[in-house]
Amino acid sequence: MSTQLTPAQLRHAIRTGEHTTNTSGLCQGFVQCNVAILPKAWADEFLQFCQLNQKPCPVVAMAAQPGDTNLVEIAPDFDIRTDVPKYRIWKHGELVDEVADISNVWRDDLVTFLLGCSFSFEEALIADGLEVRNISEGKNVPMYDTNIACREAGRFHGNTVVSMRPFKPADAIRMIQICSRFPSVHGAPIHFGDPAAIGIKDINKPEYGDAVTIKDGEVPVFTACGVTPQAAIMAAKPEFCITHSPGHMVVTDIPNSKLAIL
Amino acid sequence: MSTQLTPAQLRHAIRTGEHTTNTSGLCQGFVQCNVAILPKAWADEFLQFCQLNQKPCPVVAMAAQPGDTNLVEIAPDFDIRTDVPKYRIWKHGELVDEVADISNVWRDDLVTFLLGCSFSFEEALIADGLEVRNISEGKNVPMYDTNIACREAGRFHGNTVVSMRPFKPADAIRMIQICSRFPSVHGAPIHFGDPAAIGIKDINKPEYGDAVTIKDGEVPVFTACGVTPQAAIMAAKPEFCITHSPGHMVVTDIPNSKLAIL
Repeated sequence: MSTQLTPAQLRHAIRTGEHTTNTSGLCQGFVQCNVAILPKAWADEFLQFCQLNQKPCPVVAMAAQPGDTNLVEIAPDFDIRTDVPKYRIWKHGELVDEVADISNVWRDDLVTFLLGCSFSFEEALIADGLEVRNISEGKNVPMYDTNIACREAGRFHGNTVVSMRPFKPADAIRMIQICSRFPSVHGAPIHFGDPAAIGIKDINKPEYGDAVTIKDGEVPVFTACGVTPQAAIMAAKPEFCITHSPGHMVVTDIPNSKLAIL
Repeated sequence: MSTQLTPAQLRHAIRTGEHTTNTSGLCQGFVQCNVAILPKAWADEFLQFCQLNQKPCPVVAMAAQPGDTNLVEIAPDFDIRTDVPKYRIWKHGELVDEVADISNVWRDDLVTFLLGCSFSFEEALIADGLEVRNISEGKNVPMYDTNIACREAGRFHGNTVVSMRPFKPADAIRMIQICSRFPSVHGAPIHFGDPAAIGIKDINKPEYGDAVTIKDGEVPVFTACGVTPQAAIMAAKPEFCITHSPGHMVVTDIPNSKLAIL
């Protein structure tokens, strides 16, 4: 699959089953989103959870009404039932299926949330000349459970999950400046340095993703991560919900630069 | 001396000899500046040095012409010969006098530079709820020589001097955001963490100012410091120059918020 496809072309290829793999590195310059689809009976509390925990759970877009399958603000032709390469279907917190199309399980009470993802700020970091270690090492970013509690909203609760990227201090300062411009993709990091200070047991054993090299003179920099809302959903165990499969994101028509507040 | 004086009132009190001490904590909300006054034969190279090293040497204002004693952009009534509480007069890099008025040594070839000072960003940090340790401990900020070379300009050269303020990592991230808004008062820090990485030998023995407490879980955060241009001037040994005495600053009519770029 060429990386030169427009978002509309890629979504069409996904919809027709021509593209079935992850979206990492595709349609560079355009926002990609995490997906959470919840029944209306759970959606209000989930939105409140996101509102109370905006750094890990930045809502880029949500369906105007339960049952809506389009979200015009992210793309005029978008259809949430067909435009994600791979979906995960969950019942009572258990993964029950992984599918390429959710048209046959769609319900009129389902509310779609699209959440910001780190691809947007990683692109800005690389454009500024910073090395993003998980990318240069061809790995998934390492992610860790922390002891930083999210604010509860109804049945949704849990601790913040963070991703980690190592930088030299001067580069970390620049990274903080750049990421501060992107509040809707997790914004500035929430911690750097001592992993134990936020309850991380072993920096070399991430709970999600892959460990990356931390070189001499570098400090680990920790950013709130989109796995946080997924973990909160799994813990809340709604009778039914749908997420994207990791790395298989919604590709929007929104340029990454549109997420920059300055 | 009341802290409630306007900058114009304080400058008048300084001019008339009523106020002779340092300006720390006075006229809160208004920009205070470091002073460097150099003969024209040295001024062009000094300006280039500042241009090449903007983080330690941010020029807030400079005289339009050699010999000018007013700088209308900082205050309509300003007179550099009388409006600083205490001046230091240097010859060939040696301190030769400390005076309250430089009218009798003024020369038509002297060029006045006003450089940004950390008071402006410290006020913004405190307003945001951060603890600035040198202020809470009633000390001068600790300052250190580093191994970070400035870019040379003619006869001016030297290493960057940094000030240090300790913060917990989350507060350091916020401090970086706030200071980034104030490029004309040294901007974002240039290093945090390991002092040895920038050539600091002993964090408890600053070359200038006082040591401050670094608490458990805090990291030292290092900001380029206005002592850098002073040290470069001392090393260049111009036959004649004038600076302010430490802490005895120019108090301007410029609100600190005007220095914020966003």
